[in-house]
Amino acid sequence: MVLPVMISVIYREEFKTCLAFLITIVALGSVGGIMKIKKAEKDKIYARDGYVLVALTWLFMSAFGALPFVISGAVPNYVNAFFETVSGFTTTGSTILTSIQTLPKSILFWRSFTHFIGGMGILVFAIAIMPKTEGSAMHIMRAEVPGPSVGKLVSRLRASARILYAIYIGMTLLLIGLLCIGKMPLFDSVCTAFATAGTGGFSVLNNSIEGYASAYCEIIIAVFMVLYGVNFNLYYISLKGHWRQIFKDEELRWYIGTIAAATLIITLQLTVTRHPFSQSLRLAFFQVSSIISTTGFTTTNFDMWPTLSKIVLYLLMFMGACAGSTGGGLKISRVAILAKNAKRTIKKAFNPKRVEGVKMDGRAVDEEIVTGVVNFLAIYVIVIFISVFIIAIDGHDMITSLTSVVTCINNVGPAFSEIGPYGNFTELSSLSKVVLTFDMLAGRLELIPMFMIFSKYIIPHKNA
Amino acid sequence: MVLPVMISVIYREEFKTCLAFLITIVALGSVGGIMKIKKAEKDKIYARDGYVLVALTWLFMSAFGALPFVISGAVPNYVNAFFETVSGFTTTGSTILTSIQTLPKSILFWRSFTHFIGGMGILVFAIAIMPKTEGSAMHIMRAEVPGPSVGKLVSRLRASARILYAIYIGMTLLLIGLLCIGKMPLFDSVCTAFATAGTGGFSVLNNSIEGYASAYCEIIIAVFMVLYGVNFNLYYISLKGHWRQIFKDEELRWYIGTIAAATLIITLQLTVTRHPFSQSLRLAFFQVSSIISTTGFTTTNFDMWPTLSKIVLYLLMFMGACAGSTGGGLKISRVAILAKNAKRTIKKAFNPKRVEGVKMDGRAVDEEIVTGVVNFLAIYVIVIFISVFIIAIDGHDMITSLTSVVTCINNVGPAFSEIGPYGNFTELSSLSKVVLTFDMLAGRLELIPMFMIFSKYIIPHKNA
Repeated sequence: MVLPVMISVIYREEFKTCLAFLITIVALGSVGGIMKIKKAEKDKIYARDGYVLVALTWLFMSAFGALPFVISGAVPNYVNAFFETVSGFTTTGSTILTSIQTLPKSILFWRSFTHFIGGMGILVFAIAIMPKTEGSAMHIMRAEVPGPSVGKLVSRLRASARILYAIYIGMTLLLIGLLCIGKMPLFDSVCTAFATAGTGGFSVLNNSIEGYASAYCEIIIAVFMVLYGVNFNLYYISLKGHWRQIFKDEELRWYIGTIAAATLIITLQLTVTRHPFSQSLRLAFFQVSSIISTTGFTTTNFDMWPTLSKIVLYLLMFMGACAGSTGGGLKISRVAILAKNAKRTIKKAFNPKRVEGVKMDGRAVDEEIVTGVVNFLAIYVIVIFISVFIIAIDGHDMITSLTSVVTCINNVGPAFSEIGPYGNFTELSSLSKVVLTFDMLAGRLELIPMFMIFSKYIIPHKNA
Repeated sequence: MVLPVMISVIYREEFKTCLAFLITIVALGSVGGIMKIKKAEKDKIYARDGYVLVALTWLFMSAFGALPFVISGAVPNYVNAFFETVSGFTTTGSTILTSIQTLPKSILFWRSFTHFIGGMGILVFAIAIMPKTEGSAMHIMRAEVPGPSVGKLVSRLRASARILYAIYIGMTLLLIGLLCIGKMPLFDSVCTAFATAGTGGFSVLNNSIEGYASAYCEIIIAVFMVLYGVNFNLYYISLKGHWRQIFKDEELRWYIGTIAAATLIITLQLTVTRHPFSQSLRLAFFQVSSIISTTGFTTTNFDMWPTLSKIVLYLLMFMGACAGSTGGGLKISRVAILAKNAKRTIKKAFNPKRVEGVKMDGRAVDEEIVTGVVNFLAIYVIVIFISVFIIAIDGHDMITSLTSVVTCINNVGPAFSEIGPYGNFTELSSLSKVVLTFDMLAGRLELIPMFMIFSKYIIPHKNA
């Protein structure tokens, strides 16, 4: 939080804004100090502790991260501020702000910075920069890093976290540079790059990327959204020169194929019904890469598009980006495993004797992972259904009820109707905001960790 | 089809209507004759053959069942007639007819009668009345009877099919009697009873049960819709006097509990926003029992209800009735297994050592069944997503696209917006109708059998 204070000073903002961050820093420091006094009774971290630790850390960070918004008066309502902060850390990008440009720059910077931190995972960040024992970290990373499996890039975990972070920061610096070349102001470039890197979607303008009216910036951002949706392991592999492995990667091929197909469909429909071909292509590519990478930037009010294009975007929200990227959603590899398992189940019914494994990248996938993915879908569906039911109590229209949950649990950002690109989440009730906050966290942490809230396991365990 | 011919004669209809049925009878007879000439090469029926046989039979019956509509001129377009017939046999109740009352009585009778046949399963019907070997029938029944498991009521399969049928017919006769007492015309009583028994939902009036404006009939039908949604095995058990077992039945308790909760929520919301309490209760109970039993009768335009009530109905569509009933949907027992398995998965994540089974009715459920149910959900979700995508090509609004597939795959009938209680399916394109027809059959036959259309297995198998 030192960075926003500096921003506040540089831009000579009102003192109370600066003070808001200082107060939060002091509060965080004192809580940290108190916690340090009470020494941990044991060093080893079990699977369960990993989940609980991750969930508590995210909640804790969000609770404190919301303070600057409240204290500075930018978002007076704490529930709103908490929603906005969770939306930031989970890289969702759903906002309750109605007027963004009028806020102090330090607040805007903090808002975008939460995306940047959240993108790589608060704890992976912590592992990367803090000294810690190795064994514990694996459980934390498993609970936090998206996707069905955690690839240990190099044998030592801390080293791999550092490599991922170096790639992440390197790409972001490159993006900032490219945006500055496109004549986007430096402050906007930095914030936009943060939001792109985390596949978040908060913008410093009310009308998102549309506000810059720059085809160059749009294309640069669209390409980087696609890039941040790729499994970061692939970048590491490519840095080591194993290019052929990348092209063989099945998830990447599904990802590129889906983007191409979705862009084509929407481009054709927009060309037929609205715009000239080149404009349609630009709008379609930007929106598809924004939604599939679960960023949520917009360059047009896609809620006004024809139904087919809207449904394509809606379905992409579920799919999400690659595992091991900063994106959300079900993840492409899960969708691929689900599709292959479905095909196998049907084949098996017709020919019970032929038992075959589900293959990814030419290798058989562990049956335990397949079961895990299918169970994941079941929990995911149940959480969506229950959330939709609670949101419906608010009495907004059906589309709002059905799509708000989907956009939040998949960490996308905007949805349709009242919460479309030109709408926002402020009209929802506090109850709905709490449910959507839960969904954002559940989606970002891949469901399981958040259930510790409902679990008796949060109470100090006896026989661990 | 002899019955509609009789109806046609009794009501002195135009000769061409009567002729339509006679032509179909002749056509069916000759095809049957030709088929009999080509003797089967083997007697034994394998699992695969069961699926293929069931799927082909349903397609075949629907193809011929559509003929009277086309020949009589009631539904000139064959795709529409096929849609209507599949909707009948699968007990969905979605209609493409815009003016129902004006049709000849024999056509209306045939339309309702398809529900009655479909309710218990064309093939279970065949088993019940035709001499056949025992071993083969089990595979057919497994492919056709809804729900995760087939309960062999008594050791001999044909006998159990007869018992189920006796209960089914007995209840239907009782319902006809009760409706006649309520001063519903005999013809209407019979057709309505058929549609209720099959949990279908075709009515002989344009505005469904609302048209009779009789509270007595509404309540009778509502109660019977609930009854037909119960597992028929329970009726058999109660006939044998084992009452206690019924109250212990977990699926039944979930079913009753869900109906009560949903009715309560909708009643409260309607009381607050629209009608007096008694009217709200009546409307809510009728609509809830109609949707959860997947019948689809209506007594009001629920598409105009507030969002929460609509979302409750939408969620009930997915849930459906009990396994082993004539209703559709996912089935309560599947939903229960999914919920329990989700709970177990979460528990297991927090405490990997504690491995426990999923229990239903106090007994552990076979892990194979749990896996089957979870895989079922995955295929179900994939089919819905792909179908929604194709329906969206039509360009109707999002609600229509999202709910038409759901109402068809769950064999409910009406949905929201353009296909709400006061709308119908006629405006959809032929492509959409074909997709929805597939969904209705896939839903009714519990997904797997219909995939033989896409499978190479339909070609005579070499090594069987």
